[in-house]
Amino acid sequence: MFVTRRPAGRWLAGGALLLCLAVTAGYLPDHAQGGDPLREMTRPRYADGKQLLLPGEYRNWVFVGASLGLSYSETARESGPGLFHHVYLQPEAYAHYRRTGQFPEQTMLIMELYRPEQKVSINRGGYFEGERVGLEVAVKDRGQFEEGWAYFDFANGRRPQARAFPKQSCFDCHLQHAAADNVFTQFYPVLRSINAAGR
Amino acid sequence: MFVTRRPAGRWLAGGALLLCLAVTAGYLPDHAQGGDPLREMTRPRYADGKQLLLPGEYRNWVFVGASLGLSYSETARESGPGLFHHVYLQPEAYAHYRRTGQFPEQTMLIMELYRPEQKVSINRGGYFEGERVGLEVAVKDRGQFEEGWAYFDFANGRRPQARAFPKQSCFDCHLQHAAADNVFTQFYPVLRSINAAGR
Repeated sequence: MFVTRRPAGRWLAGGALLLCLAVTAGYLPDHAQGGDPLREMTRPRYADGKQLLLPGEYRNWVFVGASLGLSYSETARESGPGLFHHVYLQPEAYAHYRRTGQFPEQTMLIMELYRPEQKVSINRGGYFEGERVGLEVAVKDRGQFEEGWAYFDFANGRRPQARAFPKQSCFDCHLQHAAADNVFTQFYPVLRSINAAGR
Repeated sequence: MFVTRRPAGRWLAGGALLLCLAVTAGYLPDHAQGGDPLREMTRPRYADGKQLLLPGEYRNWVFVGASLGLSYSETARESGPGLFHHVYLQPEAYAHYRRTGQFPEQTMLIMELYRPEQKVSINRGGYFEGERVGLEVAVKDRGQFEEGWAYFDFANGRRPQARAFPKQSCFDCHLQHAAADNVFTQFYPVLRSINAAGR
C-alpha cells in the first residue's frame, strides 16, 4: 500500500507542474483553460445606478483613428482647424470585432480631444497635438441602457464619474449615421479596413 | 520511512500547484519568475546584414500621437492639408520609457501615413483619415547601427525588408532637434507628458 502510494504522490506533483507549464506557456486552447477571449476585457463599472466610472489605464488599448476638426455641420468654423480626436477601444473588443464584425457587449470606446499646436520647435507647417482638452466615452451595455449604447463626458478627466448624455444628444445621430452598430467606423481607418474585408 | 515520504509527495504536489498559481496570477515579482520586463518585446529582425524586416502586427502597440501635415520647411505646401501621421512603439518600450525616461535598446517606432479625407458620410468640416499611403520605422539598435538609431521606408508595406536611409536623410535632423534620444517626443502628447513629469 505504501509502496504504490509513494510514486503516486510524485506523479501528482509532476502532473501539476506539467499542467502549470502548459497553461503558462499557452499551449492549451482557451476552453481547456476555462477561458473566453473576452475574459480579460476591462468592463464598464457604475456608481449610483447608471453613472459610469472613468475607465482607468487605456494607453494599451487599440487606437483606431485620428481626425482634426471633424464636424457634421455646414456652418463654417469660427477660427482655427478644430480639435484632434483620438479613438481607442479595448484590445479584446478589437480582436472580437476583427473576428466577427460585431462589437461585443461592454465594448468601450474612449475619445480623447487635443488642441492643435504649430510652429513649436522645428515645426513650421501643419499641426501636432498640444494639450488634451477632452475625454469622452461610449459604452455598449444593453444590461444598463435600453438603447444599447450610451455616451459620457468626463470633463477631460476632472469628473471621476459621469451620467449618460440624453438620448437625442449623441445616440440618435450615431444610430442614424454610424456605419457599424452605432460606431463611426467609416472615419476610423483601423476599423474601416475590417469592414471593407467584409468580416 | 514510508510514513514520512508519503505526505512529502503530497506536499510536493501541493507546492508545485501553488507555485503554478502564483506565477500564473502574477503574484511573484519579475525576478522571481526569472523575468525581465522587456523579455516579451518584439525585437527588430534583419536580413542580408542590415536590412530590417517589416515588423508584423503592431496594432496592439502603444499609440503616442497623431499630426496633420507636419513639416519643418518654411515653404508653403502646394495644396491641401498634408498627411496624417500615426506613431506607435512597443508596449514594453513605452513602459520602460515611463519608468526610466529612456528608450531601451531595440525600441521600434512605427509611423503610418494616411491621406486626409473629408465630406464623406455626414462629415462636413475638418479631416478624417482615408487610405494609408506610407509605413516607416525608426529603430534604436546600437548593435547594428553605429549612430544608435536608423530609419526605414517600407513603401507602405509593399517592401518586406528595407535598407536604412543614409545618415543625413533622417538621423542628423532627429539628433539635432528631437527632444529625447532622437525621438520627437515634443510632438507626441503621450510621450511628452512623461517628459514633462521629469521622469
